[in-house]
Amino acid sequence: MYKFPYKDIISTKQFTRNDLENIFSIVKEMEEIVKSAKVSRLLEWKIMWSLFYEPSTRTRLSFESAMHKLGGDVLTVSDWSTSSLSKWESLEDNAKINSIYCDILTIRHPEVWSAEKTAKSVSKPVINAWDGANQHPTQSLLDVYTILKENKRLDNLHIAIVWDLKYGRTTHSLVYLMWLFENITFTFISPEELKMPEKVISFLDEKNIKYSKINDYKQWIKDADVLYVTRLQKERFTDLSEYERLKNDFILTLDVLKNAKKDITIMHPLPRVNEVSHDVDKLPNAAFFRQAENWLYVRMALLYLLLNQSEWKEFSSD
Amino acid sequence: MYKFPYKDIISTKQFTRNDLENIFSIVKEMEEIVKSAKVSRLLEWKIMWSLFYEPSTRTRLSFESAMHKLGGDVLTVSDWSTSSLSKWESLEDNAKINSIYCDILTIRHPEVWSAEKTAKSVSKPVINAWDGANQHPTQSLLDVYTILKENKRLDNLHIAIVWDLKYGRTTHSLVYLMWLFENITFTFISPEELKMPEKVISFLDEKNIKYSKINDYKQWIKDADVLYVTRLQKERFTDLSEYERLKNDFILTLDVLKNAKKDITIMHPLPRVNEVSHDVDKLPNAAFFRQAENWLYVRMALLYLLLNQSEWKEFSSD
Amino acid sequence: MYKFPYKDIISTKQFTRNDLENIFSIVKEMEEIVKSAKVSRLLEWKIMWSLFYEPSTRTRLSFESAMHKLGGDVLTVSDWSTSSLSKWESLEDNAKINSIYCDILTIRHPEVWSAEKTAKSVSKPVINAWDGANQHPTQSLLDVYTILKENKRLDNLHIAIVWDLKYGRTTHSLVYLMWLFENITFTFISPEELKMPEKVISFLDEKNIKYSKINDYKQWIKDADVLYVTRLQKERFTDLSEYERLKNDFILTLDVLKNAKKDITIMHPLPRVNEVSHDVDKLPNAAFFRQAENWLYVRMALLYLLLNQSEWKEFSSD
Repeated sequence: MYKFPYKDIISTKQFTRNDLENIFSIVKEMEEIVKSAKVSRLLEWKIMWSLFYEPSTRTRLSFESAMHKLGGDVLTVSDWSTSSLSKWESLEDNAKINSIYCDILTIRHPEVWSAEKTAKSVSKPVINAWDGANQHPTQSLLDVYTILKENKRLDNLHIAIVWDLKYGRTTHSLVYLMWLFENITFTFISPEELKMPEKVISFLDEKNIKYSKINDYKQWIKDADVLYVTRLQKERFTDLSEYERLKNDFILTLDVLKNAKKDITIMHPLPRVNEVSHDVDKLPNAAFFRQAENWLYVRMALLYLLLNQSEWKEFSSD
Repeated sequence: MYKFPYKDIISTKQFTRNDLENIFSIVKEMEEIVKSAKVSRLLEWKIMWSLFYEPSTRTRLSFESAMHKLGGDVLTVSDWSTSSLSKWESLEDNAKINSIYCDILTIRHPEVWSAEKTAKSVSKPVINAWDGANQHPTQSLLDVYTILKENKRLDNLHIAIVWDLKYGRTTHSLVYLMWLFENITFTFISPEELKMPEKVISFLDEKNIKYSKINDYKQWIKDADVLYVTRLQKERFTDLSEYERLKNDFILTLDVLKNAKKDITIMHPLPRVNEVSHDVDKLPNAAFFRQAENWLYVRMALLYLLLNQSEWKEFSSD
Repeated sequence: MYKFPYKDIISTKQFTRNDLENIFSIVKEMEEIVKSAKVSRLLEWKIMWSLFYEPSTRTRLSFESAMHKLGGDVLTVSDWSTSSLSKWESLEDNAKINSIYCDILTIRHPEVWSAEKTAKSVSKPVINAWDGANQHPTQSLLDVYTILKENKRLDNLHIAIVWDLKYGRTTHSLVYLMWLFENITFTFISPEELKMPEKVISFLDEKNIKYSKINDYKQWIKDADVLYVTRLQKERFTDLSEYERLKNDFILTLDVLKNAKKDITIMHPLPRVNEVSHDVDKLPNAAFFRQAENWLYVRMALLYLLLNQSEWKEFSSD
C-alpha cells in the first residue's frame, strides 16, 4: 500500500512520477465514491481550516466540498486580510494557534513561500492553495489527472499551451509536472507580452525537454494531443490597444479546431472570459467542465492522503 | 408513495393541490423529527450550495439549518455579488461549475427568472430563494402550511392581507397558492400607494375568486379567519409624510382585534417594524413565531423531496 | 453525576467552586477525546448559532471547532452588525427567531448585559462570548483550567497579572474566578494609565483577598506562581509617547525571568504584540500555546454540558 511520504503539499516540484501514479489511483477511488453516491466517513470529524488571505471562491469551495464529501468539517476565514489580527500578529504565531483548532490547514497567502513557512511552524499538514506568484500545486495535479483520464496516457504527448503564459501560473506548474513523463513536447502560443518566463524555459533546457514557441494557432494545431487554454485578462496588459487587437484573434472556435486531431483534449482552468467560444463546449473532447469536476476528486484524494499518513484505513463506506 | 414530480422549485405556480397535500404530510414528519430530537441522517453527506447574490441572513440560515438537521452539509457564498468572478463570468458557466461541488443549489439573485435560467443549465436541483421582483416559492409554502396547522383546514377560509401589498411579494405568492383550495375569500387592506398590483387582481378575476379591497382594519375584521400582516417599510414611500400619517394608524393592537373572531390566525413573515404591537404576541392565535418555526420544517421537507426523487428512502433515524 | 445547574453561561460570577471542579473534570474528558482522535458524536446534529455582532476570528473559530469535534454543526453570522436587519429589529425578536434554527446560541454583542437579555427571551441555552465592557466568562474558565493543569492546584497561589489591567477584561474575570479558591494572592503590575479598575479592587477588599500593586517586573517576580501577561495595545494610550516609553520596558525576556521561580507558569491570552519575547516560547513553563489549546477543550465541555442538561448521556465514541 502506497504511504504518502509528505506532511505537506507545498510545491509541484516535490512529486515523483511514482507519487503521481499512486495519487491518481486514489483519485479514481474518490471519483467512484462520489459517482456511486456512497456515504463516506473516511475523514469523519476531521476539521480543515480554510485560511484565504486572498479571496478565491472556487478553490476554497472545491476544497470545502471535498472535505464534506468525506464526512469532514470545515472552518472558514475568507477575509483574513481585512482582520485587524493579521496586521500585527506574526504569520508563525497565527499558524501555530490556528493549527490547534483544526486537523489540516489550507492556505492562500500573497507572499511567496508563505505556505512553506507556515508548514514549518506547525505540526499539522498544510496545503498550499497559492502562495503569491509562486505555486498552486493542487491545481497542477488535477490538470495532469485530467490529461490522464482524457488521453488515457501521460507519456508520448504533445501539449500546446495558449495565451497568458506569463501570469497564468497554472501553465508553469503544468510544465513542472509533465516533464516527469516520457517523450513530452510542448508548444507555447502567446503574444510576445505574455510569453513563458525565462525560469520555465531554462528549466526545460536543463531537463532537455522539447518545446517550441509560436504565436499563431493555426500553424501547429494539427500536432497537439492536448490544448491548454488560459484566460486573457485585460488587467495584464500595459497597452490596452494591444489587448483589443488580440482578444478576438485568439478565440478558440470550431473553425480553428478544423485542423486539429479528432481526439485533441481541450482544457481550460476556468473561469473563461471569451477565449473559448461557447460552440466548442459541445465537442466530446471539450474537457474543461470535466476538468473542473476533477478539482473535487483530486482534492478529496489529497486531503485523505495527508490525514491518513500514520493511520491508513481501507476504503469503506457504511 | 408520493413521488416529487419536479427537479426544481422555481415558482408557486408549479404546484397542484395534490402536490401541496403530499408536501405537507412530509413537513409534518420533519416537524416530528426536530421535536423528538431524533438524529436523522436522511441527507447525510449531501451538500447544499447557498448562493446569495443578495444578502438575506434569515432565509439563508433557515435553509442551512434545515440541511444540517437532516445530516447534510452546506457551502456558503453570501457575498457573491462583490466577487470579481461575478463581473464577467456568465450565470450559466458559473452555475455549471458550482453545481459540480454540491448536490443542490439554493439561489437568490436579483434578476427575474434567474433561478429558472440556472435550473435549465445544470442537472442538479435548484431552489429559488427569491428572483428579484418575481417569486419566493418556499416562503409561500410555509405560509400555507401555517394556515393548515393553525386553522386545521385550507378550504372555506376568509383571508385578510394587510399593508404593503405592492412590494410584499409574499402576499402575491400566498394568493397564487391559496386559490387552489375551495371557497377562499380575500380581503386586501392597504393604503392606495401600496395596493395589490393589477397582475394579481387579474389573476383573481380570471380564476373567479372572491376578493374585496378596503383601507380600514375595523370594518372587516369580524369576518377574517386569517390575518396576514406585512412589514411597512419607510423606503417604499415616495412621500414620507404619507408614511408618517399611516404608520400609527395601521398598527395591529389588542384593541383592533376586539372585533375579530376568537380563533383568527395572526401571521407575519417577520421581521416586523412596529406594525404588530408587542402585546399581541401573547395571544394564543398570534402565530408569527410558529410561522417562523415552519420555515425550518418546510425547507427540510423540500430539500428531502428534491434530493430523494430517484431514490426514495423510508423515514428512519438511527 | 454532576448536573449542570444553568441554562446559560452569562457571567463568571455565576459559578461556585463546586461547579468549576465538576466542569474541569469534563474538560479533561474532552481533552482525551481530542488527543486520542476518537470520533465523538455527543452533539450529533446539534446546531450552534454563532452570532458575532463584533468580529472575533479566534473566539468564533474555537467555538466552531469545539462544536464540530463533538459531531455538531454550526451556523455563522460573522457580520451581523452590517446587516440591514440589525438596524431596526429588536434584539429580543431577533433572538427569538434565531433560536428556532439552532440548539444553542453563542453571542458577542457590544452592549453590556446583551447576552443576559438574549438568554431571557429564548428557551435555548445562550453563551456570552463577550458583552461589551462586561464579561467573557468562557475565557476565564479556560484561564483557570490552565492554571490547574500547569500548577496542579488552584489553592495557595500567587498570581501576578501584567500590563493592560484597565481594558484587558480577561484579567478582571480571572480575579472573579480565582477568589473562589483558598489563599490566593494577586500582584497587579501596570503603568498608572492602565491600572486595575476600582470595581475589581473594591471586590477584592470586600472579599478580603490579598493583593498588591506595583509597576516594575523585577521586584516581585520571585514570588509568583503564575504570571499572566496581557497585550499592550497602542490604541489604548491617549499619549503615544507614553506607549513608546513603556513598550520596551515591559517586555518579558529570559533575563527578566532569571529571578522567577523555576516552575512559574507563564500565560498570555494571545495574540501577542511584542510583550513576550520569542525566546521565552521555548521554556517548558511557557504555557500560552497550551492555554490556547485549552480554549478548545473548555468550550467543548461547556457546549456539552449546556446541551445535555436534561438528557445526560454517558461518554462514548463509536
